[in-house]
Amino acid sequence: MLKHMNIVDLKINSDRLRADFDALAEIGATVAGGVSRLALSQEDLEARSWFANRIEASDLVVRDDDAGNLSGVLYCSNRRARTLIMGSHLDSVPNGGRYDGALGVLAALECLRTVKEAELDLPVHLEAMNFTDEEGAWQGLFGSMGLTGMLSPSHINDAVEDHGAFRAALFRAGIRPMDVHRARRNPENVTGYLELHIEQGHRLERATLDIGVVTSIVGRMTYHFTFFGEAAHAGTTLPQDRRDALQGGALFIHRAHELIHEKFQEGGFNCGNAEVRPGAFNIVPEEVRLTVEIRHPDADVLADMESTMMKLAQECAEAHHLTVVGKRTLYRTPAAMDETMIDAIERACESRDATHTRLVSYAGHDAQMMSSFTPTGMIFIPSIGGISHNPREFSRWEDAVNGANILLHAALNVAMGA
Amino acid sequence: MLKHMNIVDLKINSDRLRADFDALAEIGATVAGGVSRLALSQEDLEARSWFANRIEASDLVVRDDDAGNLSGVLYCSNRRARTLIMGSHLDSVPNGGRYDGALGVLAALECLRTVKEAELDLPVHLEAMNFTDEEGAWQGLFGSMGLTGMLSPSHINDAVEDHGAFRAALFRAGIRPMDVHRARRNPENVTGYLELHIEQGHRLERATLDIGVVTSIVGRMTYHFTFFGEAAHAGTTLPQDRRDALQGGALFIHRAHELIHEKFQEGGFNCGNAEVRPGAFNIVPEEVRLTVEIRHPDADVLADMESTMMKLAQECAEAHHLTVVGKRTLYRTPAAMDETMIDAIERACESRDATHTRLVSYAGHDAQMMSSFTPTGMIFIPSIGGISHNPREFSRWEDAVNGANILLHAALNVAMGA
Repeated sequence: MLKHMNIVDLKINSDRLRADFDALAEIGATVAGGVSRLALSQEDLEARSWFANRIEASDLVVRDDDAGNLSGVLYCSNRRARTLIMGSHLDSVPNGGRYDGALGVLAALECLRTVKEAELDLPVHLEAMNFTDEEGAWQGLFGSMGLTGMLSPSHINDAVEDHGAFRAALFRAGIRPMDVHRARRNPENVTGYLELHIEQGHRLERATLDIGVVTSIVGRMTYHFTFFGEAAHAGTTLPQDRRDALQGGALFIHRAHELIHEKFQEGGFNCGNAEVRPGAFNIVPEEVRLTVEIRHPDADVLADMESTMMKLAQECAEAHHLTVVGKRTLYRTPAAMDETMIDAIERACESRDATHTRLVSYAGHDAQMMSSFTPTGMIFIPSIGGISHNPREFSRWEDAVNGANILLHAALNVAMGA
Repeated sequence: MLKHMNIVDLKINSDRLRADFDALAEIGATVAGGVSRLALSQEDLEARSWFANRIEASDLVVRDDDAGNLSGVLYCSNRRARTLIMGSHLDSVPNGGRYDGALGVLAALECLRTVKEAELDLPVHLEAMNFTDEEGAWQGLFGSMGLTGMLSPSHINDAVEDHGAFRAALFRAGIRPMDVHRARRNPENVTGYLELHIEQGHRLERATLDIGVVTSIVGRMTYHFTFFGEAAHAGTTLPQDRRDALQGGALFIHRAHELIHEKFQEGGFNCGNAEVRPGAFNIVPEEVRLTVEIRHPDADVLADMESTMMKLAQECAEAHHLTVVGKRTLYRTPAAMDETMIDAIERACESRDATHTRLVSYAGHDAQMMSSFTPTGMIFIPSIGGISHNPREFSRWEDAVNGANILLHAALNVAMGA
């Protein structure tokens, strides 16, 4: 198989990867130095078209499916072999950074090119995947949900955004809403899934480690808590007579952060929005709606956190003579990564002298959908300053190259073990 | 002067007042049983027109000025006499009650009719006044500011609402923005100002007293506090790394209520609105703007409260690694009522066996503008449940009649002393 070099010494072409990275960063580039490539937008479609051209230029097979996922395939000689998928997403949040998603897709493509150039005939096909709408401009993890059989035509009707516009955007991208369920693959034909991504946090940088090996992706619940009080004249209503919805909401925000932090070491809490009615200087607020999320890598503990949060909301409401209603709007179960894949990544780190640690991903990724479908592993590289979903998102290029090489060797390890 | 009865026994005609009250409540009536008569709206213009007709039907002189104030005048025989003004406002807040303002205007008109019927030739002219936009649909206390010389053409440009729409609304009501300064009266021609109003609070009802004699109207400051932090990924950013503007804002709301209540017995605090950016489930809030007001009857203490509030905002910002900017958007100085007017009201209560107490008004009124211009007094009747700015606002009709009679006799006391 390998002609001119030992497989352990195989490396991706960092200049070629860099050229792709810079070219892609031009598509949807923002003045702040980041990118806006919302899923199904003109910029996203342009990025897909560019990606398809890069696949063809690399003499790989272009493939797409009914959920808009776009991939390049390097077939091995055994046509009945299974496929090892690598990838991430080309779409971004509004005013996002250049690394999130893009690095994982381009590194996957570069891995295929490297294997092809080395004329390795692996026992698996390799596929470099761009998943549709990971970030959720319309429906988060849409592509990986499609591939894993989680999408039905009705799914599009459950999207938070306007369905008509979503459907129109899908049509414009050549995706027929009624056909998205056809994107489902047969898991028997898939060996596993590997994803390279920036950490989006501080942990690797602070520990001066090269690589994070993800053990699980946090589960996440989102909630709307609405506190109901009574509008009253702010000048004439005595403190003890007030039923001030905003006082209840503020107490909840203040105490929830403290309580969740104290009780749940690995848990995360955020209150991202507060909407107050009627919202005037001189009227005691009668209604406050809070936008809340909790995260935890363990499903049981996440359920505990949910109960704790519900109880606290009740206490804060009672303290101000209010009522409160909590409505869960999303539940994503925690996703454990596969031990075999973790082992393949850690062996790749050892063979390339990359320092590494195991960690939990507190952000969601396509890997969390894939983990219920096929053995899945994730590789993190350091994010400088932990900045994420921001044009100032940055990773050192040597870390990006290192991550791509770890992805390559993890894939080779998986392929050899398959 | 008085022909058929002793002046002490003079009473307003409660049936006639009731008929006016019910007729006025039909204008802008809401399904909830209240009224929406926003200043300069079609409903307000209709109420003015109705009021002008009532004045004419009572054989009084209709008068208006360049700020849209509309009044009925009962001239005494001495053309060079000064004028005792009584009144309030016909406009309401959105979805307000039937008593606020309306009672004071109608009771004033009824006093004039009662004096006229009794053929009393007082040493003062009497004027029953409807002030423009007390509630602040466009510019609170607009009419009383105009009458007291506080309006200039540029004042309209300082209105919070859209100036173009405000000017258009003024024009529609027949008020020319450039001429509003002409509404200014000469204080030498005015003896004083008396206003009957519902208490809008609980104090009289709880003490089972008939009448509140206002000693001062609270001063009021409004503020926008903006807390600035940094947007970050809510999943991946550790608690100690967050600069969460909403945590700072929530802490401020929670602690400000406690602190102001503890330190300033007669003070009032309200946070009526919170606006959060960017406002998503999974993004740490970077900016929170709070809409705040403080009230106190003493100017020095109000200044103390302001400092306390500013200091607290800084502390709450620092606790969460934020910065905060406080911007004062309004300052109304506390307004002391005149001792002569207080005495005239209290003597009226004594002569009519009405139980009474002195109290501070925590709501703003046209009387606060008038107090800097002419000796001013205010009479409160009980509000059932203290409910205000609400369709459920209610006062017992016997209290309304009683209040109108106290207004009448206070006016007679002032007139006799003039």
